[in-house]
Amino acid sequence: MLLFGSERSGRAVREIVVFSGSAHTELAEQICSDLGVPLSPVEIHRFSNDCLQVQLQTNCRQRDVYIVQPLVPPTQEHLMELLLMIDAARGASAAQITAVIPHYAYARSDKKDASRISIGGRLVADMLTTAGANRVLTMALHAPQVHGFFSVPVDHLTAIGVLADHFRGRDLSDTVVVSPDLGNAKTATQFARLLGVPVAAGSKQRLADDRVVIDAIVGEVAGRRAIILDDEIATGGSIIELLDRLKDRGCTQAAVACTHGLFAGPAVDRLRTHPSVTEVISTDTVPRPTGFPELQVTSVSGLFAQAIKRIHDGESVSSLFDGVDPTHAPPQPKLPF
Amino acid sequence: MLLFGSERSGRAVREIVVFSGSAHTELAEQICSDLGVPLSPVEIHRFSNDCLQVQLQTNCRQRDVYIVQPLVPPTQEHLMELLLMIDAARGASAAQITAVIPHYAYARSDKKDASRISIGGRLVADMLTTAGANRVLTMALHAPQVHGFFSVPVDHLTAIGVLADHFRGRDLSDTVVVSPDLGNAKTATQFARLLGVPVAAGSKQRLADDRVVIDAIVGEVAGRRAIILDDEIATGGSIIELLDRLKDRGCTQAAVACTHGLFAGPAVDRLRTHPSVTEVISTDTVPRPTGFPELQVTSVSGLFAQAIKRIHDGESVSSLFDGVDPTHAPPQPKLPF
Amino acid sequence: MLLFGSERSGRAVREIVVFSGSAHTELAEQICSDLGVPLSPVEIHRFSNDCLQVQLQTNCRQRDVYIVQPLVPPTQEHLMELLLMIDAARGASAAQITAVIPHYAYARSDKKDASRISIGGRLVADMLTTAGANRVLTMALHAPQVHGFFSVPVDHLTAIGVLADHFRGRDLSDTVVVSPDLGNAKTATQFARLLGVPVAAGSKQRLADDRVVIDAIVGEVAGRRAIILDDEIATGGSIIELLDRLKDRGCTQAAVACTHGLFAGPAVDRLRTHPSVTEVISTDTVPRPTGFPELQVTSVSGLFAQAIKRIHDGESVSSLFDGVDPTHAPPQPKLPF
Amino acid sequence: MLLFGSERSGRAVREIVVFSGSAHTELAEQICSDLGVPLSPVEIHRFSNDCLQVQLQTNCRQRDVYIVQPLVPPTQEHLMELLLMIDAARGASAAQITAVIPHYAYARSDKKDASRISIGGRLVADMLTTAGANRVLTMALHAPQVHGFFSVPVDHLTAIGVLADHFRGRDLSDTVVVSPDLGNAKTATQFARLLGVPVAAGSKQRLADDRVVIDAIVGEVAGRRAIILDDEIATGGSIIELLDRLKDRGCTQAAVACTHGLFAGPAVDRLRTHPSVTEVISTDTVPRPTGFPELQVTSVSGLFAQAIKRIHDGESVSSLFDGVDPTHAPPQPKLPF
Amino acid sequence: MLLFGSERSGRAVREIVVFSGSAHTELAEQICSDLGVPLSPVEIHRFSNDCLQVQLQTNCRQRDVYIVQPLVPPTQEHLMELLLMIDAARGASAAQITAVIPHYAYARSDKKDASRISIGGRLVADMLTTAGANRVLTMALHAPQVHGFFSVPVDHLTAIGVLADHFRGRDLSDTVVVSPDLGNAKTATQFARLLGVPVAAGSKQRLADDRVVIDAIVGEVAGRRAIILDDEIATGGSIIELLDRLKDRGCTQAAVACTHGLFAGPAVDRLRTHPSVTEVISTDTVPRPTGFPELQVTSVSGLFAQAIKRIHDGESVSSLFDGVDPTHAPPQPKLPF
Amino acid sequence: MLLFGSERSGRAVREIVVFSGSAHTELAEQICSDLGVPLSPVEIHRFSNDCLQVQLQTNCRQRDVYIVQPLVPPTQEHLMELLLMIDAARGASAAQITAVIPHYAYARSDKKDASRISIGGRLVADMLTTAGANRVLTMALHAPQVHGFFSVPVDHLTAIGVLADHFRGRDLSDTVVVSPDLGNAKTATQFARLLGVPVAAGSKQRLADDRVVIDAIVGEVAGRRAIILDDEIATGGSIIELLDRLKDRGCTQAAVACTHGLFAGPAVDRLRTHPSVTEVISTDTVPRPTGFPELQVTSVSGLFAQAIKRIHDGESVSSLFDGVDPTHAPPQPKLPF
Repeated sequence: MLLFGSERSGRAVREIVVFSGSAHTELAEQICSDLGVPLSPVEIHRFSNDCLQVQLQTNCRQRDVYIVQPLVPPTQEHLMELLLMIDAARGASAAQITAVIPHYAYARSDKKDASRISIGGRLVADMLTTAGANRVLTMALHAPQVHGFFSVPVDHLTAIGVLADHFRGRDLSDTVVVSPDLGNAKTATQFARLLGVPVAAGSKQRLADDRVVIDAIVGEVAGRRAIILDDEIATGGSIIELLDRLKDRGCTQAAVACTHGLFAGPAVDRLRTHPSVTEVISTDTVPRPTGFPELQVTSVSGLFAQAIKRIHDGESVSSLFDGVDPTHAPPQPKLPF
Repeated sequence: MLLFGSERSGRAVREIVVFSGSAHTELAEQICSDLGVPLSPVEIHRFSNDCLQVQLQTNCRQRDVYIVQPLVPPTQEHLMELLLMIDAARGASAAQITAVIPHYAYARSDKKDASRISIGGRLVADMLTTAGANRVLTMALHAPQVHGFFSVPVDHLTAIGVLADHFRGRDLSDTVVVSPDLGNAKTATQFARLLGVPVAAGSKQRLADDRVVIDAIVGEVAGRRAIILDDEIATGGSIIELLDRLKDRGCTQAAVACTHGLFAGPAVDRLRTHPSVTEVISTDTVPRPTGFPELQVTSVSGLFAQAIKRIHDGESVSSLFDGVDPTHAPPQPKLPF
Repeated sequence: MLLFGSERSGRAVREIVVFSGSAHTELAEQICSDLGVPLSPVEIHRFSNDCLQVQLQTNCRQRDVYIVQPLVPPTQEHLMELLLMIDAARGASAAQITAVIPHYAYARSDKKDASRISIGGRLVADMLTTAGANRVLTMALHAPQVHGFFSVPVDHLTAIGVLADHFRGRDLSDTVVVSPDLGNAKTATQFARLLGVPVAAGSKQRLADDRVVIDAIVGEVAGRRAIILDDEIATGGSIIELLDRLKDRGCTQAAVACTHGLFAGPAVDRLRTHPSVTEVISTDTVPRPTGFPELQVTSVSGLFAQAIKRIHDGESVSSLFDGVDPTHAPPQPKLPF
Repeated sequence: MLLFGSERSGRAVREIVVFSGSAHTELAEQICSDLGVPLSPVEIHRFSNDCLQVQLQTNCRQRDVYIVQPLVPPTQEHLMELLLMIDAARGASAAQITAVIPHYAYARSDKKDASRISIGGRLVADMLTTAGANRVLTMALHAPQVHGFFSVPVDHLTAIGVLADHFRGRDLSDTVVVSPDLGNAKTATQFARLLGVPVAAGSKQRLADDRVVIDAIVGEVAGRRAIILDDEIATGGSIIELLDRLKDRGCTQAAVACTHGLFAGPAVDRLRTHPSVTEVISTDTVPRPTGFPELQVTSVSGLFAQAIKRIHDGESVSSLFDGVDPTHAPPQPKLPF
Repeated sequence: MLLFGSERSGRAVREIVVFSGSAHTELAEQICSDLGVPLSPVEIHRFSNDCLQVQLQTNCRQRDVYIVQPLVPPTQEHLMELLLMIDAARGASAAQITAVIPHYAYARSDKKDASRISIGGRLVADMLTTAGANRVLTMALHAPQVHGFFSVPVDHLTAIGVLADHFRGRDLSDTVVVSPDLGNAKTATQFARLLGVPVAAGSKQRLADDRVVIDAIVGEVAGRRAIILDDEIATGGSIIELLDRLKDRGCTQAAVACTHGLFAGPAVDRLRTHPSVTEVISTDTVPRPTGFPELQVTSVSGLFAQAIKRIHDGESVSSLFDGVDPTHAPPQPKLPF
Repeated sequence: MLLFGSERSGRAVREIVVFSGSAHTELAEQICSDLGVPLSPVEIHRFSNDCLQVQLQTNCRQRDVYIVQPLVPPTQEHLMELLLMIDAARGASAAQITAVIPHYAYARSDKKDASRISIGGRLVADMLTTAGANRVLTMALHAPQVHGFFSVPVDHLTAIGVLADHFRGRDLSDTVVVSPDLGNAKTATQFARLLGVPVAAGSKQRLADDRVVIDAIVGEVAGRRAIILDDEIATGGSIIELLDRLKDRGCTQAAVACTHGLFAGPAVDRLRTHPSVTEVISTDTVPRPTGFPELQVTSVSGLFAQAIKRIHDGESVSSLFDGVDPTHAPPQPKLPF
C-alpha cells in the first residue's frame, strides 16, 4: 500500500476520489486498495428506453477524480457509462478528471484502411475530451501513435516489464520471442531484449477481423521454444494461425503472453486444446474470462496505483521505475541523441 | 413521391445521399422511397473485441448526406453506429451531414434532478457535434427546451397532426384528451385544440423510472371517452396508472396515442389486457414491437422526406404545411405579438 | 455570518473576491456580509459613444472570483456589464470565475416557439462562456432544462424552501397551491407537498408576452384560500387573469408568491388593487420595486453565501441542507431508483 | 442600382437576404435599394422582463444572409439585437451570415490602458463569432489592428475617398489636413495625400473619455484653412479643443470631417457655435443627429452595396475601385516590396 | 492534361486556385500543368527582423484553393510560409482550403518515445487547422496512424504503384523486397505483393536519429537481388547499414527505392559509392538533390492533379484507379469482411 | 535576488520551472538568477529531415512552467522551438504554462495593409494557444492593440522606465524626444513626459520594409539634442532617415534608444558611422549584436523576474511599481475618469 500526503509539506493535496464503471470493478477495487483510498460508489441506472444514467455517489467538488473503466464487451455500454461519469464529474465541479482506461479497445481503429470509415480511436478520444476528461491513463495502446489522437495529456503505461518478470529466472536457452505480425514487432523486439533472447515474427495477412493467414515467419524458430507476445488476444485467430505455422517450422512448444486477455468467442477452447501451448499468461486490464482456470493472470493494479499517486502528487511518471528496473519504463527519460 | 432538381434552375443541386444505421432500416427505406432516391448501403462490422466499424458504401464527397438512426434499444449500440457513420462521412468530405434521429431517446435526460448526474441529452448533443453532424432532424423531443442543447441547427418536427388525422372525422362528442402528466400537458392541450375537445391531466409523481403514482386528475373526465396522449411509451407504467385512475373517476374507455411507441418489457401485455383500452396508435419513428398486432401505426416517413427535400432545396421547413394543415406545423411562422 | 479559512487545514485557500455590477448591489453587499468578505469595488464607465467599460478595482490574480449580477432591466446593459467584468477578470488571471446570476432572465427564451428566432437562453449561456465564466450560480431557472444550455457547471438553487417558510406555522386548512400554468406545475406541486396542501393549475393560453387567457382551472379551488406560486412576475398578466378565474370559481382569497419579483409596468397597481389579493411575497433575487410598500421580501442572500462558501471550500452544494430541511435542497443527493 | 445573377453563368447564385436591426434602417434600405433586393422584415419584441426576441420574417435556409446594424446608442440594445439576429439566422440554416456593422463602436476599446479592464473590441468580436457570424463587413475601424481581433474574415472599407470627393475641385491652396491626435495621424496623412495638401496633428492627452488637452500642434497651421479629420465624433471634445488650439496658432477657419458622426451630448451645439467652423461633413454609417440641419452627410451605402455584391459574387473587394479611383481602395492589392 | 468543368452539368464549379510556397515550385507547376490551370503567383517577403509575410496575388474569394508545400528543409521556414498562406486565404474568404503537403516531414514525430517531448506530427496538424486548412492532401505518411492526428479530412495518396511501375516488366526472379525495419514492414509487404516477389526486413535498433544498428535480417536474402523500399531517405544511415548487412548475408546487389528522397548530408555520397547499389529511385514529392545525376525520379504530379480534380468535382478519390490498376489505390473501397 | 515562498503562509506554492529555447539563454539565465531558481535544461535536436524535437529535462507535472524565448532570427526556428516546448510541457501535465516572449517580433504584422496577407501577429498568437500556452508575458508590443490578438491573459511590460533611468540625472535642457513615426508617437510622448522634455515626430512614409522616406518633422528640433526612441531597430533604415532629416533641420546630435535592439544587416555600420549619433542604448530582450562594442545595453531581466514572481504568487503585476516609480508601470491601476 502506498502512503499519501504528508511527504510533501507545503503542497495542497486535493483529495483523490476514484469511481468505477461496471466494466471491471475488481481492478478498480485493487487499485484503490493499493492506493489506500476507498472506491467511491456509483449508481448506474438503465431507463426503460435503454438509455443509461449514472450517478456518482461521492462529492467531486474540487477533487482529483479518477474513473476506472476498460473498454471491454459490451464495449458500447461501457464507453457510454464512462462518458456519462466523466460528464457528471465535470458538472459536479471536479478539479481534474482522469479517465483510467486500462484497455482502450478502440485503439485498434487507428488508421483508414478502407474508404469512408471512421478512425474510431480518434473519434472516441475526441468524445472523451468532449465529455470533460482532462487526462487519460492507459496501458499498451495497440499502436504508440494512438497517443497522438488525444488532445489531453496521456500517461501511457506498459505491461511488458510485468510480463517479463513472469519469465525471468527460468532457463531461457533455446527460447525465441515471436510476434504474430511483422508490422507490430517493435514491442516484441523490446520484450526479447528484456529477456536476452532472439525475436521472430510472422508475416500476417488479415483476411477478416478474425481470419488471418500467416504466409511466412521471419527469424529462426525451428527447435526452439517460443514465447508468443501480443498486445490483445480476442478470438485468438492470429495466435492459433501462428502456432500452426510455428509447428510447421519445427517449433512445437509455445508460451502465449498478452497484456489484454479478452479471450472472446472460441479463444479459450482454441488455446486450451492446442497441442503446442504450454501456458497462457495475461494481465488484469480486463476481467478474467470464464472457463479458463489454467490462465495465469498477473496484476497491473500496482502500476496504475503508482501512476495515480504520482499524477496526484505532481511527480514524474516516467521516472517511476528509476533505479528499480529500467525495462518497465514507458517513454525513456532521455532521448539517445 | 417528391420530385427533385429541375424545379429551381440556376441552383447547384448537390446530390442527396441517405444512409441508415441498423436501428430502423424500414423507416429509412420508406423515407428514401418518398424522396425518390436510393438508400445507400452501409456495412457494419463488429470486431472480436466488440468495437464497431461502419463503412459507408457510397461516395459522400461534396454530397448532402443524411443518416437515419432513431436511438432505440440497444440504444448505446445504435448511438455509436450513428457517431461512427457521421465521423466517416465527415472524413469522406461530405458537404453537409444531417443526423436524422426520429426518436432522440436521450432527450429524457434533460435536467439534473439529482446531484452528480450527467444531463445526457446535452452530452449526446455535444457528441453528435464532435463527430461532425452539421444539423439534426428529429421529432417530438421529450421537452421543447432540448432543442437548445444543440449547437447546430435542429429541425424539430411534430407528429400531432398525423395523430390527430387518425381521430378526425369521428364523433368526438364526450371525448377528452388526457395527458399523463401536468408538467407536460402543453402538447396535449395543443392536440385537444386540434380536435376541438377539452383537456385533462394527471398529477404524476414518479417513484422510479418505471413506477409512477398519479394522485390526482385535474379536469373533467367522468363519463367521457379519453384519448391519452404521450410522447413516448416505454413500459407503459404511467399509462396504466392513468387508465386505472381514469376508471376510478368514471372514465372507462380510452384510446392511447403516442409518437414514439417503444412498448418495452410488459407494455404490450399491459395495454392489450387493460379493459379500458379501445385502441392504441403510434407512429413509425421506432420499429414496430413484436406481438402487438392490434397496434395501429401511422407513418411519419412522408414528413421526414418532405423536411429533407426542403432542407436540401433551401426551402422553409416551417412553411412546409402552409395552406394544407396548420396543425402539423412545428414552430409557427410568426409570433403572436 | 459564515467563517472561513482555518477550518480545513492542509488545503490551499485561494482568496475569494466578490464583485457586483450595477444591477443589484444591495444583494451583493448582503451576500458579502453573510460571507464575511468585503465587496470589491468596480468602476463602470460609459463612453460618449455609449460603449461600456468596467474596471475591477481589486487584484484578481489566482483569486476565486464571484461576480454578482441578476439580469434585470435594463437587461442588455446589465448583461454587457457582466460580460465585460467576466472578461476583465479572465484577462487579469483569475483562478476561477463564477457568474452569480440570481435571476437569469433569458431563461424565458428556452425554446423555439416560432421560426427563425434565437433560443436566447442558450445564446446568452454561450456568451458567458465565451467571456470566460467557469461556473454559473443561479436560482429558479424558468425551466429546469435551461441547466443543460450551459457548457460549464451550474449550481442551481431553489427558493421554494424559503418561500414555504413564510407560510409554515399558519393554519393552512382549506388552502390550495395554484400554478398559473399546467405546463409548469411541477414546482407548484413540490411546493404544495412542502406545505401539505393540494395543488391546482390554470390551463393558460398565451396570446402575447403580456396577454394570456386562462380557459380552465384543473383542480378544486371553490371556497379555498389560494397560494399562487410563480417563478417570475413581470407585468403580472398571468396572475391577474388567474385571480379573476379563481374568483369566478369561488376562490376569492389569494396570497401571491414568486421567486423573481420584477413587478414591471402595471404589475404593482394590478396587484395592490385586486380584491382577492391578501398578500404578495417575493425574494430579493431582483431589486425591490418602487411604490409597493406592502410587498414582503424574504432574502436569499444566505443561500447564495452558503453556496459560494461551499463552492470555494470544495464542499457539496446539494448536501447543503442535509439534516436541516430536505425541502430546500435543489437536486436530491440520490435518485429514487 | 447594381444588377445581379445572370452575369456569371455556371455559378450557383444563392439568394441574398438582407435584414436590419433597429439601429439604422434608413441605411439598410438604401443599401438594399442600391443592390436591387428588398429589405427583409424583422420583428423585434421586448418581453416584459426587458429581454429581447427577434424574429427574422424571411426564409434564410441556404441563403447568403446580411444583417445591417451599426453599434450606435443605445449600443447594448443594438448589440444584443444583432447577436440575436445572427443566432436566429444560424439556427435557421443560413448558408453564410455576414454581420454588416458600418460603425463598430467597441473598436474604441482596443487596448488595455488600465489594469483589469476588458478589451471590449476583442470581446465583442468573439461574441459575434459565438453567435454565428461567418464574416464581418465594416468601415473605418478606430485602429487598423482591430481587424486582427476577429477570427472570421473581415472586409474593412474606408470612407476617406468619399470624404475626399467632397473637397475635390475646390481651391485647396493654403489648406492643411489636421488630425486631432499624433497617435492616429496615419489616416489623416493618407487623406492629405489624396488632396495634395500638407498634414498637421495635435499632441493629445486624454484626461477622461470626454475631456482632452492638446498641448502642442506639430506642423504648420498659422494662416491656413484646416480640414480636421477624425474617424468618430461623439461629444466633440477633442475637436473643440483642437479648434481652440488652432485658433491660438492663427488658424481661424476649419472644416470638420468624420466617418462616424455620432454628435452626442453637447457636440451639435459646440460645433454649430464655434466661430472657426465653416462646415461639418460626415457619412451615414450612423443615423443623422437631430437639430443639426447644417450637417452635410454623404452616403456610403453604395460602397456597402458594392462590397456585398462582390462578396456574394466571389469577386475581389480590394479590386473594387481598380481603374476608378485608387484613393478609395482599402488594403492595396500589392505590397510595395 | 485533365479537362474540367463542362462534364458535370447542373453542378456549380467554383474555380480552382493553386498557390505554391517556395519549397518546391517545380512540382506545383507540374501539378498545375496536369490540371490545366495556371499556378497563381505568391509574393513572399522577409522583414528585416526575419518575420515572413506572404501575399497571395490572385483573388481567393469563394474559390477552391490548393496550397502546395512539402515540408522540406529549411522545414520551419516552409512550414511558416504554409501557415501564413493558409491564414491569408482564409482571411480572403476562400471557400475551401486544401493544404497539399506531398511530404509531411513532421509525421516522423508520431509517438512519445521519450518523456516531455511533443508529438510534433499532431502539433503541426493542429497548427494547420488553426491557420484555417479545411483539408489535407498528402502522400506516404511515415505511419498510417498519423492520418488520425488531423481533425480535418485527409486524402492520403501512396506512391508504391508508381514505384512498382518502375520495376514491372523486368526479370524479377531471385528478387526480394527488403524493408529496413521490421516495425514498418507492412508497406514493403504490400509492395512485394505488387511485384510478386518475397519480402524480408531488418531488425533495426535506432541509436540516434542518424545512427542505427541492424542486428538481424528476417527473411531469405542470400544470393538474391534486393529492392530496398523506404518511405523517406534523409542521411541514408539505415539504408547503408542495411546494405552492409545484406552484403554480409550474401546479397550483393540492391536497388534502392523511396517516396521522399531528401538525400541530406552524406546520403548522396554514401549511396553513389556503395558497391551494392545498382540504382536509386525516388519520386518528386521533394526537390531533386544536387550532385546526384544517377538518381531516377518518377513524378507523382499526375496523382496529385487527379486527386485535386476529384476533390474539386466531388468524385471519389479512393475509386480513382478503379479498373486501371488496383495496386495504386490507397484505402481499399471495401473492407474484406 | 528575489525571495520566495514562505512570505505567504497558507498558500500552496507549486514550484516554478523555467526553460529556455536557444534564442537567448543569457537572458533566461539572468532571469533565473534574479528569481533564485535554476534554469532547467532543454535538449533540442534537429532530425536529418530538418524537423525539430525538443525535450524538457525537468519534471513539469503540476508545475508552474515558464518558457523564455524571444522571437529573434532565425525567427521561424525559434518560434517552432517555442511551440514544441509549450506542447511538450502541456503533454507533461504542467499546471500552467507561460510563454515568456521578451520580443514578440510578429507583432509587426498587426494589420492588413495589403490584400490577401495574413495578420501574422494574430496567427502566431493563435498558434501559441493551440500549442497550449495559458498566458503570455511580453514587453513593448509594436502596437498596444496586439494585446487583443491573444485569447489568453497577457502581461505586457514596458521598458521605457528602464530606458528613462539611463537619461535621468543628466542635463536635459535643449533636449527633445523624437519618434520616427507620427503614427506611433504615443510611447515617445509618454517617454518625453517621464523626462520632462518636449516631443517631436517624423512623418514617415514606408516605401518598403527597409526603405522609408520621412517627408516632414513635426515639432521643434532645430538646435536641440535629440533622443530618438523606437520600439525595435532592425536595419535602422527609419532611424538613419530620421537622423538625416534632423540634421537638415539643424539638430546635429542624437542619442538613439530602443527596447528591441536587433541591429540587423547594415544597422551597426550605419549607426556607428553616422556623425550625429552620440550614443545608442537598448535592452537585452534580444541577444547583443556582434561588432557593436559602443552599444549600451540595460537589462530588463529584473522586470521579467519580478513579473514571474508576482504571477506565481498571485500578486498584481500592474501594482509592481507602486510607490517606487509610477513611470515604469504598464497599464495604470486606475482609469482617469
